[in-house]
Amino acid sequence: MSAYHPLNEKEAIQIARSLEGVFAEGAELTSREIGDGNLNLVFHISDPVEGTSLILKQALPYAKVVGESWPLTLDRARIESEALIQEGKLAPGLVPAVYNYDPVLALTVMEDLSDHVIMRRGLIEGGRYPLFAGHISTFLANTLFFTSDLGMNQQSKKLRVREFINPELCKITEDLIFDHPYTDADTNSFDETIRDEAQVLWNDGELHLEVALLREKFLTQAQALLHGDLHTGSIFIKPDSTKVIDPEFAYYGPMGFDIGAIIANLLLNYAARDHWDADENARRDYRSYLIGTIREIWTQFDAKFRALWEENKTDRLLSSAPGYKDDYMKRLLQDTVGYAGSKMVRRIVGLAHVADIDQIPDAKSREHAQRLALSIGKQLIKVNRKTASIEELIQIAETSAESVKA
Amino acid sequence: MSAYHPLNEKEAIQIARSLEGVFAEGAELTSREIGDGNLNLVFHISDPVEGTSLILKQALPYAKVVGESWPLTLDRARIESEALIQEGKLAPGLVPAVYNYDPVLALTVMEDLSDHVIMRRGLIEGGRYPLFAGHISTFLANTLFFTSDLGMNQQSKKLRVREFINPELCKITEDLIFDHPYTDADTNSFDETIRDEAQVLWNDGELHLEVALLREKFLTQAQALLHGDLHTGSIFIKPDSTKVIDPEFAYYGPMGFDIGAIIANLLLNYAARDHWDADENARRDYRSYLIGTIREIWTQFDAKFRALWEENKTDRLLSSAPGYKDDYMKRLLQDTVGYAGSKMVRRIVGLAHVADIDQIPDAKSREHAQRLALSIGKQLIKVNRKTASIEELIQIAETSAESVKA
Repeated sequence: MSAYHPLNEKEAIQIARSLEGVFAEGAELTSREIGDGNLNLVFHISDPVEGTSLILKQALPYAKVVGESWPLTLDRARIESEALIQEGKLAPGLVPAVYNYDPVLALTVMEDLSDHVIMRRGLIEGGRYPLFAGHISTFLANTLFFTSDLGMNQQSKKLRVREFINPELCKITEDLIFDHPYTDADTNSFDETIRDEAQVLWNDGELHLEVALLREKFLTQAQALLHGDLHTGSIFIKPDSTKVIDPEFAYYGPMGFDIGAIIANLLLNYAARDHWDADENARRDYRSYLIGTIREIWTQFDAKFRALWEENKTDRLLSSAPGYKDDYMKRLLQDTVGYAGSKMVRRIVGLAHVADIDQIPDAKSREHAQRLALSIGKQLIKVNRKTASIEELIQIAETSAESVKA
Repeated sequence: MSAYHPLNEKEAIQIARSLEGVFAEGAELTSREIGDGNLNLVFHISDPVEGTSLILKQALPYAKVVGESWPLTLDRARIESEALIQEGKLAPGLVPAVYNYDPVLALTVMEDLSDHVIMRRGLIEGGRYPLFAGHISTFLANTLFFTSDLGMNQQSKKLRVREFINPELCKITEDLIFDHPYTDADTNSFDETIRDEAQVLWNDGELHLEVALLREKFLTQAQALLHGDLHTGSIFIKPDSTKVIDPEFAYYGPMGFDIGAIIANLLLNYAARDHWDADENARRDYRSYLIGTIREIWTQFDAKFRALWEENKTDRLLSSAPGYKDDYMKRLLQDTVGYAGSKMVRRIVGLAHVADIDQIPDAKSREHAQRLALSIGKQLIKVNRKTASIEELIQIAETSAESVKA
């Protein structure tokens, strides 16, 4: 196994067995390939007798999205495992433990989380996770603060920036989030029933200016080590545990991109509730749960980030200049709002969609969810630089849910 | 010569002789070490018979500034030679030609420019360089545009960012420009007669907020490959030629830092004219030459940068979003103003000063120049985010020259 090749199940078991102290000597191991085959092989290796298990994740040298396939660097496995290790140190318990990384095979051995569910699926099914806002705000505050110039040695940070230069994965984001939805690109994908909405996106100059500013920041602002793809499909959850997975898009970028991603995906679910909830009361109730979660994520993040800053005055001037901290937090909120909007829009007209909306079987309900998500997304993008409170984002969501009728 | 060691003149000659096609076979070469010994050895190697010559510049493993000495990476020689090569491609004729780079010896062999003078010296002596604004605005527009996400492949740019990660040299700037002048730091150096001015700097909260924002941008904004130390001591000049030298501080940072540096150094000379010019008419005349140069630098830079953008629409969205270009250029101007102010302040109260002011022998005149420079610098920092035209910067300089009396 000295050269890179996609592993088979037998090899995966052999590697798992070679790890010290995981499985009992001579245990009968089984392997199940549980990846979707689009980007990675994912082997679930277990000893059914002892009930022990782990995951082997191997990067494939290509990406497949919605039928298209293009070559993709194996280096993303290094970035992913290194990001998981960093995040695990900064936010203990909130990412899977990494047991080993093999650079030649682009292979990460990590904790098995099959007792958790993918959060997107959990939300679609109406699950509630009262600890989630606390967990994710800690994850965001700790990973973003301690990888930024506010919370770590600024010379070491520059070496970290170098280590996480991630051109190919960033290119995917730059194209699919910050370009294609705003022009008649071949990669776009949307139901013909909302072609009118797509055409509005392609011709809205005010929107293009705001997206250009958000794109510029994504391209240039090395503010903190981001997860880079923090949607609800990148989160394993159960009532008492939250685990952030799959940071292969990690790079140094604007903090608001991560915070906005998680809020956008809660709002996408919010937009889809007309279908998923049995009646109006249930829908109202679940929407209010989602809104409460969003409010808690921001307010807890804001409080935790400020507290870390107070406790760790790494940078003399940035910790003492009057008004600087408030100005910084205001800009973080504005970025969060702008990126949340961008992440919503791309999931409706761009290449990759979300199950919350795409899996609505009824065409009319699906169309309504799409129009509502676009309405919220566009407004968030347009107001981002004027936002002063998370309540403004919430009001946009609630007002849109009232005004965009099925 | 297989391991790093500081060269002696005999070795320097031997290396020069080994370069093909430079000196005639068997020529009698002479060597003169012309560096200041603080950061680098600089050997001037020439064949007096043929009149051919070149420069060998070798990095020393330490820095000495005003008596202090600290270790400094030899990697800066790689960064300097690589930056010179990039700049030479993008702005032909405006940097010395690089003939060879030896990574082990941290040695760059380059064009001899001894027929030029250091611009700082030329300005002190009242020299006028009518082509300078044209040259430096071309240098700035070409090097900044074509290394940014606006003018080059955005994935290649990320690899360029990685190549120019420059923690140690950036640390010098972060400390000496964006921190120490604003606190009672040991490294600060100023005449006791202006201690009142220094104390104001240490306690001006409004100023600290603006400097914090400029510092943040210097730490995080990977906008373009900067020269990083573009003062008039980094420019060799004669009436028909401008050569930018010494880019060892090169890294990916905010464009306005380079533009502001050159403007700051013209304004430092402006502040010193009371001493250097024989009478009031001569002073007024030279100041108006300096102001005219500053105006031309910005307006020509602005026009050339916009023209490059029109001709090279590398980024679809950033080239088509209505109002984005104007917004971008406005922010560049604002950064330029803010960084110009920061570069002025540090030269009066910080560790490293400028000859334009420090070499004024008369204490009263020197103090006046210092107070004037500080007045201009502080105002530029404070107005930076509100500036809409280069005329506002010029007015601050001219009004201060009237109001800060000797």
